[in-house]
Amino acid sequence: MADLKSKFLKVYSVLKSELLEDPAFDFTKDSRQWVERMLDYNVPGGKLNRGLSVIDSYQLLQQGRELTEDEIFLASALGWCIEWLQAFFLVLDDIMDGSHTRRGQPCWFRLPKVGMIAVNDGVVLRNHIPRILRKYFREKPYYADLLDLFNEVEFQTASGQMIDLITTIEGEKDLSKYSLSIHRRIVQYKTAYYSFYLSVACALLMSGEELEKHIDVKNILVEMGIYFQVQDDYLDCFGDPETIGKIGTDIEDFKCSWLVVKALELCNEEQKKVLHENYGKPDPENVATVKALYKELDIEGVFADYESKSYKKLTSWIEGHPSKAVQAVLKSFLGKIYKRQK
Amino acid sequence: MADLKSKFLKVYSVLKSELLEDPAFDFTKDSRQWVERMLDYNVPGGKLNRGLSVIDSYQLLQQGRELTEDEIFLASALGWCIEWLQAFFLVLDDIMDGSHTRRGQPCWFRLPKVGMIAVNDGVVLRNHIPRILRKYFREKPYYADLLDLFNEVEFQTASGQMIDLITTIEGEKDLSKYSLSIHRRIVQYKTAYYSFYLSVACALLMSGEELEKHIDVKNILVEMGIYFQVQDDYLDCFGDPETIGKIGTDIEDFKCSWLVVKALELCNEEQKKVLHENYGKPDPENVATVKALYKELDIEGVFADYESKSYKKLTSWIEGHPSKAVQAVLKSFLGKIYKRQK
Repeated sequence: MADLKSKFLKVYSVLKSELLEDPAFDFTKDSRQWVERMLDYNVPGGKLNRGLSVIDSYQLLQQGRELTEDEIFLASALGWCIEWLQAFFLVLDDIMDGSHTRRGQPCWFRLPKVGMIAVNDGVVLRNHIPRILRKYFREKPYYADLLDLFNEVEFQTASGQMIDLITTIEGEKDLSKYSLSIHRRIVQYKTAYYSFYLSVACALLMSGEELEKHIDVKNILVEMGIYFQVQDDYLDCFGDPETIGKIGTDIEDFKCSWLVVKALELCNEEQKKVLHENYGKPDPENVATVKALYKELDIEGVFADYESKSYKKLTSWIEGHPSKAVQAVLKSFLGKIYKRQK
Repeated sequence: MADLKSKFLKVYSVLKSELLEDPAFDFTKDSRQWVERMLDYNVPGGKLNRGLSVIDSYQLLQQGRELTEDEIFLASALGWCIEWLQAFFLVLDDIMDGSHTRRGQPCWFRLPKVGMIAVNDGVVLRNHIPRILRKYFREKPYYADLLDLFNEVEFQTASGQMIDLITTIEGEKDLSKYSLSIHRRIVQYKTAYYSFYLSVACALLMSGEELEKHIDVKNILVEMGIYFQVQDDYLDCFGDPETIGKIGTDIEDFKCSWLVVKALELCNEEQKKVLHENYGKPDPENVATVKALYKELDIEGVFADYESKSYKKLTSWIEGHPSKAVQAVLKSFLGKIYKRQK
């Protein structure tokens, strides 16, 4: 596994070098340096789970047959395209949210000399994806499907981000907009497609499969992505900051979190008033009041119940799938996230 | 011609309605309204030259044969993809430049409730392009070429924008970075591909042509795009504000304009000092000093000379092209821009 990760990181170096010599653009020395620094700062510093799982999934779909070096390279290149997509979204999200840090360092747009140039850097990151795809997949029979896949997933992610943004618009703090169905819609589109479905879809295309025949795989992975995001919302409030590596601020930030949505569903009129008066305020006392209300409503128990029910439902869906290889891919994903603490 | 424009605008309405019902995303009522308002505000309000010229060029490539309604629709859809691409770049450029107005109205991000959501709206605009292409061109033999074309041109435009941005970084005002070669590189990539080449390339693909066989067409159109941008730089300073519809501010904004680059090339040491001391300052007196220096160096005469030489060179290139139909397309473009006053 450590070996796979180091192979994966070597592919990053190859892709980066090629992008810095892309014949479609006549780089100046300054612009080549700028892009290299921007890539190193934003692309490879995450956990790389999304990228690595293209290789994992492809391996499982090949049912244990040893992969050639060429196959590992191609699966890695697709994995990096997902990491590039993620970097593009994170660079722009941080600007929109006015965030300060990301992955333990200042957000890219916060660096001296970068500022609003980061908007264009985000666009450049996004533009690198079709450059990589064209270089390595132009002659593959699934080339157009690959472009369609990345385009559709990007469209869905940006659309999910849009609902999230217009639902939380500053100055329009109105809890009555928040519901389980809007929460589901936001996390489904904003997170699930690119974080869960995209890796497996890439592996399926590389395996010669047609995606239209795997709608059930998409549905299961999207459901898993939603479950993953609910965990994220839970950990933001109840996780150990030491373990998850950050202090959650969803309550202060008036986020449409699964917790507040569940609380709204379960509370009586009096408790609702408490929520309306305290949610989305920066004062620690307001935050503590919201957390006390979550305890009162036993949101932790409600989450534990949701978690075990989701696990059972997903397992039975997966076991109903006709292909053992596909089952193995889906079970591997589920195993990695079930009852995670970070 | 007025008829063509009204047909073209009808196609906008069709495309918009379809995007608002795209099955890849489960719109909320609010998000559908948001997208509709965002599209109407940003997409159709320009001169539409880029979009309309796809239809013009396709018509000329068909050598006068009357186009079917279906062909007009498809050429219009491609034309609108270019207008969408332009809208995407303008929305983001205005944020990066801190602009106030665009096409006679406040920039999108300046509107109440929009703000930084405009960054994501830019991304949504860009994502609409592959949605439109997929809907109408998925089964065409040139579908992958069309996606490659839009991807390559977007990459070039964003890369040109990058050199422009890092060359003009606030606080690093250093005229010694400016030269004719850097000016050429910026305008070639930032403007010429998407404003000149892209329309004709779309028309060529629709006509069943392979773009690799038309490198000369690309080179001529890119050269024309550069000439167009030099005119733009000239009009910013010497054009009639009444006619061009705005008051130029390139001198105040420390822009890498063709005029300052030419002035740097022609001036003596003393004049260079004057430029360094006065260029890029907001005070009208500094601006007047720069303009006086331009007069002293007869930049207007230098421009007139550049214009007539460019016209002759482009004409002879065009007349050397083996296809009369392609010649007609290129001459139509050149005729529209030669000696323009706005």
